[in-house]
Amino acid sequence: MRIEEDKLKSLYTGFARKLGADGREAATFATCLLRADIRGHTTQGMGLLPYLVELFDAGAMAFGRAPEIIRDNPASALVDGKRGMGQISGTFAMDLAIEKACACGIGFVSLRGGADYGMASNYAIQAMEQGLIGMSMSTGPVLVAPWGGRDAWFCTNPISLAVPAGSRDPIVIDMATSANSMGRTVLAARDGHKLSGRQLVDTQGNYTDDPTQVILNPMDRESPMAGALLPDGPKGFGMVLIVELLASLLSGERSWQDEHPSDGVNRQAFYGQTFIAIDIAKFQDPAEFAGSAERMVETLNSSRAANGFDRVRLHGGKAAEAMRDNLAHGIFVRDEEWQLAASAARKLGVELPAV
Amino acid sequence: MRIEEDKLKSLYTGFARKLGADGREAATFATCLLRADIRGHTTQGMGLLPYLVELFDAGAMAFGRAPEIIRDNPASALVDGKRGMGQISGTFAMDLAIEKACACGIGFVSLRGGADYGMASNYAIQAMEQGLIGMSMSTGPVLVAPWGGRDAWFCTNPISLAVPAGSRDPIVIDMATSANSMGRTVLAARDGHKLSGRQLVDTQGNYTDDPTQVILNPMDRESPMAGALLPDGPKGFGMVLIVELLASLLSGERSWQDEHPSDGVNRQAFYGQTFIAIDIAKFQDPAEFAGSAERMVETLNSSRAANGFDRVRLHGGKAAEAMRDNLAHGIFVRDEEWQLAASAARKLGVELPAV
Repeated sequence: MRIEEDKLKSLYTGFARKLGADGREAATFATCLLRADIRGHTTQGMGLLPYLVELFDAGAMAFGRAPEIIRDNPASALVDGKRGMGQISGTFAMDLAIEKACACGIGFVSLRGGADYGMASNYAIQAMEQGLIGMSMSTGPVLVAPWGGRDAWFCTNPISLAVPAGSRDPIVIDMATSANSMGRTVLAARDGHKLSGRQLVDTQGNYTDDPTQVILNPMDRESPMAGALLPDGPKGFGMVLIVELLASLLSGERSWQDEHPSDGVNRQAFYGQTFIAIDIAKFQDPAEFAGSAERMVETLNSSRAANGFDRVRLHGGKAAEAMRDNLAHGIFVRDEEWQLAASAARKLGVELPAV
Repeated sequence: MRIEEDKLKSLYTGFARKLGADGREAATFATCLLRADIRGHTTQGMGLLPYLVELFDAGAMAFGRAPEIIRDNPASALVDGKRGMGQISGTFAMDLAIEKACACGIGFVSLRGGADYGMASNYAIQAMEQGLIGMSMSTGPVLVAPWGGRDAWFCTNPISLAVPAGSRDPIVIDMATSANSMGRTVLAARDGHKLSGRQLVDTQGNYTDDPTQVILNPMDRESPMAGALLPDGPKGFGMVLIVELLASLLSGERSWQDEHPSDGVNRQAFYGQTFIAIDIAKFQDPAEFAGSAERMVETLNSSRAANGFDRVRLHGGKAAEAMRDNLAHGIFVRDEEWQLAASAARKLGVELPAV
């Protein structure tokens, strides 16, 4: 089904207000979720609503908790998100990084006390929409074992980079640094597919490509696990570590004191996040940069494909296509996603837009 | 064979002086190569000498070309390396990043006009030795096709992060973002091994795991290729792109104008580099950070191994072991590496230390 943007916006705003958000918080929350929906990532937009209600019921996040700047320097800051809404603290932190980048060339904001902030590229795009290069990375629920290990100590640790490319679709990288995201692994279990390699470890410590050995409830986006996800080899583990070190250890979100690995059902979560903005104008003429970026996109998109591929695809191209389509014809959501979101809204007493 | 550190230092210094370096340049050059040798990465230390002579003969790099700061901001700078020695311009750029980090929290230096700078982690470690977090990444000779493509447009684009861990071995990540480095691919061809996946593309556009289909001279570290290396799937391509965008496009090193893919023999090279330093003290008490990092290393190193693995290994641990051994017993180099280096030295008329 297709829903007009303003109707979805009104749903998200009503949802946030009902949960205690003031007008500004509600608007920020709606902007973040809509950015995901419009780019075709409804699991980080409308799909979040039922999950958010659970987190609220558990007291794990709330509106009205203003992020606090703990340490402030010309190009960097440490922010405490106070376990408020991840979308609110994330937007605040990236705004701060952008301000610092415009003054100093780069802004680097480290956030502890965060919460699920949805789509990592949301914040990178926030900077890109101001003409800057944006980066964001996050830790979160413990799901991933170290390479060579069997117990989960890490989140899937997503990383994102958004770079404007003049009149071409921007390059937007947004990916879990583990071999697979939780969402894709659950989906593979649901569909009975094997993974493309030994990307899971079972409770006996065996590496496997069979998601049904590890995912206990394939109908649950946050399924309990008998085992853990894995990085993609030692190199993938390096990427997981880069995010862990920059987003969690540096912020002080995680001290590794008296910890025990999660059991796959009761997961600890460590939401440390990093927000980086880079002011292109401090390095070269933005018009020249735009020209180079455009040619890069054109050159690669039109380069010769390998056998078995139709073309070379750049990160962010598919999302840009979805965006054009969604803005022209209303935002596409799956029927069951709408039903789940509507049910969560009704539970809270949020008025549903007519669709 | 084992060679004492001061003898190697004297060889490198003599080498640099003979090639026109002043005393300070020669000392910097020797420090960079020794750092690689001591950590067991002699391919980026002694192993570079014969290759450097080739690059000098071709006029591709030279001493005496002082890097120039083109744009300067409180936390960022754009530096032109003037195609001088990569070790000299890299050390200069990281020194600048460290200075900016100590003033602003983070320093981000983008370098164009660079050259082969050896071991990426050399510069990250340079920052780490001052108690900061260091990062470095580089582009270079065109060897890697985009995922889904068949023509080489990218370098193996290494990335490095070095983080101090108190009394424990520091975490030092240093890796090609392509599925394999050129060195490992050549070695696999030499030893007749298949790669662990379809990590190469041949001239017909077929993805293959057989290095002998692509590497034309397995005895040559910089072998000509019939085809290209590949990223590790779409996610690996994302990593290659992150380095390309931050290290090359941002610096203006590469404009993507009127370019054609290399033919596997005559490779273009685009040496753009990024140097990042982060001052831990601007985010938390460095002693607390050291404690958390120590516990992270201890926790992961002692966590349960999966079946088929002896233990969980952290990046940089093996290099730290090699370092202890080399500092105690003299630096280990392979006999043929020494012979090749000695031959290059004799060719230039550099005095050889007695070994």
